[in-house]
Amino acid sequence: MALKLHGSAMSTSTSLVIICLHEKEVDFELVPVDLFAGEQKQPHFLAKNPFGQVPVLEDGDLTLFESRAISAYIAEKFKETGYDLLRHQNLQEAALVKVWMEVESQQFHPAIAPIVYQFYVVPLKGVSPDQAIIDDNLEKLGKVLDIYEARLSSTKYLAGDFYSLADLHHLPYTCYLMKTTAASVINERPHVKAWWEDISCRPVSKKAAEGMTFGEKCTLKIKALLL
Amino acid sequence: MALKLHGSAMSTSTSLVIICLHEKEVDFELVPVDLFAGEQKQPHFLAKNPFGQVPVLEDGDLTLFESRAISAYIAEKFKETGYDLLRHQNLQEAALVKVWMEVESQQFHPAIAPIVYQFYVVPLKGVSPDQAIIDDNLEKLGKVLDIYEARLSSTKYLAGDFYSLADLHHLPYTCYLMKTTAASVINERPHVKAWWEDISCRPVSKKAAEGMTFGEKCTLKIKALLL
Repeated sequence: MALKLHGSAMSTSTSLVIICLHEKEVDFELVPVDLFAGEQKQPHFLAKNPFGQVPVLEDGDLTLFESRAISAYIAEKFKETGYDLLRHQNLQEAALVKVWMEVESQQFHPAIAPIVYQFYVVPLKGVSPDQAIIDDNLEKLGKVLDIYEARLSSTKYLAGDFYSLADLHHLPYTCYLMKTTAASVINERPHVKAWWEDISCRPVSKKAAEGMTFGEKCTLKIKALLL
Repeated sequence: MALKLHGSAMSTSTSLVIICLHEKEVDFELVPVDLFAGEQKQPHFLAKNPFGQVPVLEDGDLTLFESRAISAYIAEKFKETGYDLLRHQNLQEAALVKVWMEVESQQFHPAIAPIVYQFYVVPLKGVSPDQAIIDDNLEKLGKVLDIYEARLSSTKYLAGDFYSLADLHHLPYTCYLMKTTAASVINERPHVKAWWEDISCRPVSKKAAEGMTFGEKCTLKIKALLL
């Protein structure tokens, strides 16, 4: 039975899991969740994820939520297929993948998420983005990326000279960021820029980016709903 | 060669790793980092962790940072000793441990951390805690704990009927919270209260709590430094 992924193409967290599934060459069925209608807050969805957030993965009678936990589960369960995202064969490399997955979660994400929110979500409410919030978080993100710049001057990817789940977890948010004027925070750091061009040009990443339609189709849909 | 843990007893993140090491019955050497002197921002420490935060684990020539990554590494490397914190033998249970570890990281921690900061750190700067920040985050934490309350009415621990790394990761911050007036957010939810009493009464948890001296010795030390 194929995996069922409940989510939405406009959700960065859903995109993260989709990219992971494609890297692992795992078949799945995407079950659309209508975020505009608030379907994720309805009882039938809350029974799958009480936090009312996409995505949710159903694998037989196992129901999982939290995108980073889902991607780690997929990368581990399907270790024999597709690209090895966790470096199972090497405990030291696997440990460094964990470290840089946590760096994304605890250092990178808290800085980039408010910026993307200001650029994409706030305008849909008919309000101008708060430049002070953008500037404050760009400063934080810049400091994180200074450390990435140093790291990526000695290793090709974050955990070492191999692409891993740690790099993959950066894709959805950075993909949206790169379509804004804040892209300079990446482009002005040469090793970070080269890393981004590398990981975003992987066939799976490019395919996923095409589906990340928040800035296009979904924006039009939200605007239509707000009219 | 014993593991070297660079950290400080007043740091919640260091405490988290110490609890994990004790649960796994792993010998280690605690190398004190003088946070008051800003040792974590000095070049010799930044060479171990460029983010300038404790703890750092050295295992031979492997250097790891980010406490949640360190604890996962320890729980995995020493799977044969001490208590099984990751449920290695059961892929489904292991996946649920991952889910609830992410819930701690993405839902619980962002709400509890600002509260603990206001109660413990802000007063040391000679400023009163900001009640609006406390109230705002207590409301967020309450919503998260409502979901915990429902979960813990059907399973004894977060990931299932077994104690795991997901529960353990809640210990340090909650330990500090329970010494404040905000403890009611735990105590007024009977299943959450019973869960907290269970996990905080484990011999390893109690031993660690004795070492978590932020509210006592360290506060005195900070106050002395500020005089």
